[in-house]
Amino acid sequence: MVVVMKRDATEADIERVSEKVREAGGEAFVSRGAVHTIIGLVGDTASFMGLGLDNFPGVDHLIQVGKPYKMVARALHPQPTTVKVGPAAVGRETFTIIAGPCAVESDEQALAAARGAKAAGATILRGGAYKPRTSPYSFQGLGERGLEILARCREDTGLPVVTEVMEPRDVELVASWADALQVGTRNMQNFALLKEVGATSKPVLLKRGFSATVEEWLMAAEYVAQRGNSEIILCERGIRTFETATRNTLDLGGMVVAQQESHLPVIVDPSHAMGHRELVAPMARAAIAAGADGVMIDVHHDPGEALCDGPQALTPGDLLELSKDLNALALALGRQLV
Amino acid sequence: MVVVMKRDATEADIERVSEKVREAGGEAFVSRGAVHTIIGLVGDTASFMGLGLDNFPGVDHLIQVGKPYKMVARALHPQPTTVKVGPAAVGRETFTIIAGPCAVESDEQALAAARGAKAAGATILRGGAYKPRTSPYSFQGLGERGLEILARCREDTGLPVVTEVMEPRDVELVASWADALQVGTRNMQNFALLKEVGATSKPVLLKRGFSATVEEWLMAAEYVAQRGNSEIILCERGIRTFETATRNTLDLGGMVVAQQESHLPVIVDPSHAMGHRELVAPMARAAIAAGADGVMIDVHHDPGEALCDGPQALTPGDLLELSKDLNALALALGRQLV
Amino acid sequence: MVVVMKRDATEADIERVSEKVREAGGEAFVSRGAVHTIIGLVGDTASFMGLGLDNFPGVDHLIQVGKPYKMVARALHPQPTTVKVGPAAVGRETFTIIAGPCAVESDEQALAAARGAKAAGATILRGGAYKPRTSPYSFQGLGERGLEILARCREDTGLPVVTEVMEPRDVELVASWADALQVGTRNMQNFALLKEVGATSKPVLLKRGFSATVEEWLMAAEYVAQRGNSEIILCERGIRTFETATRNTLDLGGMVVAQQESHLPVIVDPSHAMGHRELVAPMARAAIAAGADGVMIDVHHDPGEALCDGPQALTPGDLLELSKDLNALALALGRQLV
Amino acid sequence: MVVVMKRDATEADIERVSEKVREAGGEAFVSRGAVHTIIGLVGDTASFMGLGLDNFPGVDHLIQVGKPYKMVARALHPQPTTVKVGPAAVGRETFTIIAGPCAVESDEQALAAARGAKAAGATILRGGAYKPRTSPYSFQGLGERGLEILARCREDTGLPVVTEVMEPRDVELVASWADALQVGTRNMQNFALLKEVGATSKPVLLKRGFSATVEEWLMAAEYVAQRGNSEIILCERGIRTFETATRNTLDLGGMVVAQQESHLPVIVDPSHAMGHRELVAPMARAAIAAGADGVMIDVHHDPGEALCDGPQALTPGDLLELSKDLNALALALGRQLV
Repeated sequence: MVVVMKRDATEADIERVSEKVREAGGEAFVSRGAVHTIIGLVGDTASFMGLGLDNFPGVDHLIQVGKPYKMVARALHPQPTTVKVGPAAVGRETFTIIAGPCAVESDEQALAAARGAKAAGATILRGGAYKPRTSPYSFQGLGERGLEILARCREDTGLPVVTEVMEPRDVELVASWADALQVGTRNMQNFALLKEVGATSKPVLLKRGFSATVEEWLMAAEYVAQRGNSEIILCERGIRTFETATRNTLDLGGMVVAQQESHLPVIVDPSHAMGHRELVAPMARAAIAAGADGVMIDVHHDPGEALCDGPQALTPGDLLELSKDLNALALALGRQLV
Repeated sequence: MVVVMKRDATEADIERVSEKVREAGGEAFVSRGAVHTIIGLVGDTASFMGLGLDNFPGVDHLIQVGKPYKMVARALHPQPTTVKVGPAAVGRETFTIIAGPCAVESDEQALAAARGAKAAGATILRGGAYKPRTSPYSFQGLGERGLEILARCREDTGLPVVTEVMEPRDVELVASWADALQVGTRNMQNFALLKEVGATSKPVLLKRGFSATVEEWLMAAEYVAQRGNSEIILCERGIRTFETATRNTLDLGGMVVAQQESHLPVIVDPSHAMGHRELVAPMARAAIAAGADGVMIDVHHDPGEALCDGPQALTPGDLLELSKDLNALALALGRQLV
Repeated sequence: MVVVMKRDATEADIERVSEKVREAGGEAFVSRGAVHTIIGLVGDTASFMGLGLDNFPGVDHLIQVGKPYKMVARALHPQPTTVKVGPAAVGRETFTIIAGPCAVESDEQALAAARGAKAAGATILRGGAYKPRTSPYSFQGLGERGLEILARCREDTGLPVVTEVMEPRDVELVASWADALQVGTRNMQNFALLKEVGATSKPVLLKRGFSATVEEWLMAAEYVAQRGNSEIILCERGIRTFETATRNTLDLGGMVVAQQESHLPVIVDPSHAMGHRELVAPMARAAIAAGADGVMIDVHHDPGEALCDGPQALTPGDLLELSKDLNALALALGRQLV
Repeated sequence: MVVVMKRDATEADIERVSEKVREAGGEAFVSRGAVHTIIGLVGDTASFMGLGLDNFPGVDHLIQVGKPYKMVARALHPQPTTVKVGPAAVGRETFTIIAGPCAVESDEQALAAARGAKAAGATILRGGAYKPRTSPYSFQGLGERGLEILARCREDTGLPVVTEVMEPRDVELVASWADALQVGTRNMQNFALLKEVGATSKPVLLKRGFSATVEEWLMAAEYVAQRGNSEIILCERGIRTFETATRNTLDLGGMVVAQQESHLPVIVDPSHAMGHRELVAPMARAAIAAGADGVMIDVHHDPGEALCDGPQALTPGDLLELSKDLNALALALGRQLV
């Protein structure tokens, strides 16, 4: 950490900062510049952040040099992590397809999507029973009945299930049905929920907040890891920008940064990022080419009748086509599609 | 609502849309253009949104003409609402100062801030007992002990208390201590929390999500109102943009739009929007001049020692100065400062 | 400037950086941290930026501590500058109203707007003869004929004229007619144009790019100043964000930062920021309350017939009303409206 | 186009709009809704935009249904265009590598980069002689001397040259040396420059403005095409968002939208989008997988000594590696790398 002093900071101001850092067990190196004096702090950066140095007299601002995350940091755990979801695995060595309906609507609909997913080589089934919706007048999901349907789909196809949990009180129930717990984009900084899923033994699929920096996303993962659960899959799903031609802007550069900064697997959800069916396949192909550890795709056997996000759903046939492309690309890149 | 058909839509496609709308009790007016045919829908727009028309064959996209909110819409309730918080009121006719510590740290600190707030003319005390923090290593608030301290501050000053609640399970507890419940920027779309505070009889101070459009903000208020609680104060607190010179970009234009679109009072939090002390007073003055119904300001008797957001806190002395300016401006604008 | 070394940087890497800085006449202070070594550079920061240190082996990244602007920096010229435009002045001590038509359309239209501006207390007339338009099919302005009309308006009202110049080749011509040259938001980083207007003796009204940081805006002003012309008025006119309820998001916090960082006057254009008539007056009032040095307002006697940006134009009557509010606010704030 | 009337619009207001449209040769279809009346306009949309309908009494707002571009629109020219640059071609059928130095610094440096580009299979040489720089204190390019160096590189390697032109006055000179003219991201709405390059017979490489929507980008291309030059290559190079981990956010979804909306070829510049060397190859691979028509890559034989954007430059060796990956991906996708 670097402390930048104001132009008119006094010697006493400088000494006060240095003293405080030494008290906290660190070292302070003072560089007196023509305009600004700067103080380089050496020691445990995280502990310095609690000192309130930015409020000290004569201090202009602090500059963070190291990274605030620890447990999810690749710097401290160079070996990439592979996360197991039931019999399936997500990690740097493989490329995983997760697919299924955006929202579970009925036995028939979910089963058709699940079988389509399986046929296309997906190894994990996605499906929403609890749906966060901008409008209280939109379909809010089937709740526990949706979880039961997903369980029947798992029985039928053998695919493990990842599904979203929206509030701390539901975590135990959802965890009793699901193989992995999804935390959605709007809940990325729902800290109570992060702590609760961090206390379970189920893997967590953590979507990036649509306005979160990569650093904030990794700090959200840190909340989960800190509670004892390091089985975390990160999922890039598009960020909010000024561009309205697509629902969100898929940040594949941010996905690669997350892979560099963290030892956790990072996958991509092109369906929710784009919001338009015809953009899903190009972005899924881009994801594998950029090095993502997997993709998560919405599937619906009859998108015209979907109760949620129909315009972005692929049909089982579309998914099969996409899967062939992904296989060809994996081969070309020397990666293994599982 | 307007349905824009694709260039190659058939007559059957057009008829299918029209038929569906008529089945739902609406009317469909078809305009055949040189390039696109468009269909104007007349009737209950909200019900049309559930028809999945955007997935119909031949449909290019839908254009929403009306607004999706109802209970909070000014169009349907032209009379502005005044919300009572204990003995204080927030509404279009007055200008309310809410002030207090960002986070409650101790009896002494909270009391100093509360007395400073009172002395400067604030009529509501703010203070955080539960703090959402990006890092799990930052101070997370005193919890219930903080609520007790706030209650003692209320006893001492007579000011009613607004404080943040972060998860559904805490709503009952927090509501038992507080005069009003704050939903923070990161929780604006925590729908479980919105429903829970909507089921209480305490007024709700709903901060705008830092990446939420005004429309999404009003839809979040709709979630609260739909549960039976219409005592909602909206609070603009800055949005996330590319600019990093300030913590966020204060959107006063969006504040005015919220006032036009909704009958609810709308206040401004310049402290969290700016993140720098010296920008708080200018933006508080701008807020009243733009027509805001109040401001919410962080106060700390010794910002250099604050455990949370010290750089943005005003001292009680600063607040008193600001209050004089606000009074002068209110007078000039023909408004009443309460 | 601070150089942050990589975790695996060698002593030779550190020495290489230090050596380079010393060669350039600076000093380098090395702080060896547990994780990162950082090197504080003392001396002429601008000269260090040309050393390419971010490309040196072992260097992770550079952190800029000082500011890159010099001639426009308040730090180096603490005294605020007042810019004269004909007989009018724009500066920190006064509050200036600039008003007139968005685009000059005809003698009658321009004159009506100019007289309305004058009647409302404006001391500078704005009006566009060359119009940058997103579409080549939109009205592009009257060109030189528009300049002649503006000159007649000046004769009639006595108001000096500020008008936009869009390309280097036109600078001489426009400068021969106008009292001040406007550089528009899309041209803020049109460096050839900045250099050209910097070579004239006419004051320059430099609009902030709608996606420019405050720092980039000040660097654009530095281009003008560097050519010998320090008569620069900065104009905040809204930035592009995800919010679509207003045309742009007016960044009054950024306006104040520009005033703190620079000695130049800073005004606000609420008309182009908002794009809706009913939001112009609230934002103009907010601007003066936040401390802006003036506002620039679109006026049209018959907005329904305007060829450009009609929905945001005030009528002369609206402007008069707004002017009364601004006067009352100026009085309340102890400022002088000129 | 659809006109949405205000809630309180009168019959006379509705008739006035309809009348105006009929006068302009169009048809107006009125749909009277419970809340809003909407009027569907049929005919030449572009001509309706000049009617100023948004300013008519009783009009709330207009909704554009069709697209404002014509000459560059795929809807009107379904056949994709292939643009020839000297002997090279850029189009939907092939994948083109453009590579070279960000800025031309010397004969040796440019030649090393050009030979590296050629060796890696690039068919067009890029290189900047005129450099737009945020700071007037940064290296501004060698100007005409740089053009001469590029010409010598062309002679040596046989590669045609694309280079940036920054102002209308330079177009003739630059066009006399170069095989294609680049318009940079900051100049995407420099309309005078667009018109000038549109009047030449040289192909134009038009970078997307870092804050431009896809629609604005295509309208900029329309300016060029309208002057008679349809040899335009669009180049996505990242947009400005809140994320700071990468220099910009590469918008591959926007790239695909541009391909769908326009018949022009669309390439990607991952070097300027990312700003970090290690992210260039993943994003170049993503670009081809998403269907881009080519990539443009910065190369420098000694990035540590580069005068401009060294941190993002690949070495010739890196480029060769990347080129192998791109070949493998092209093969897998059934595309031809040229």
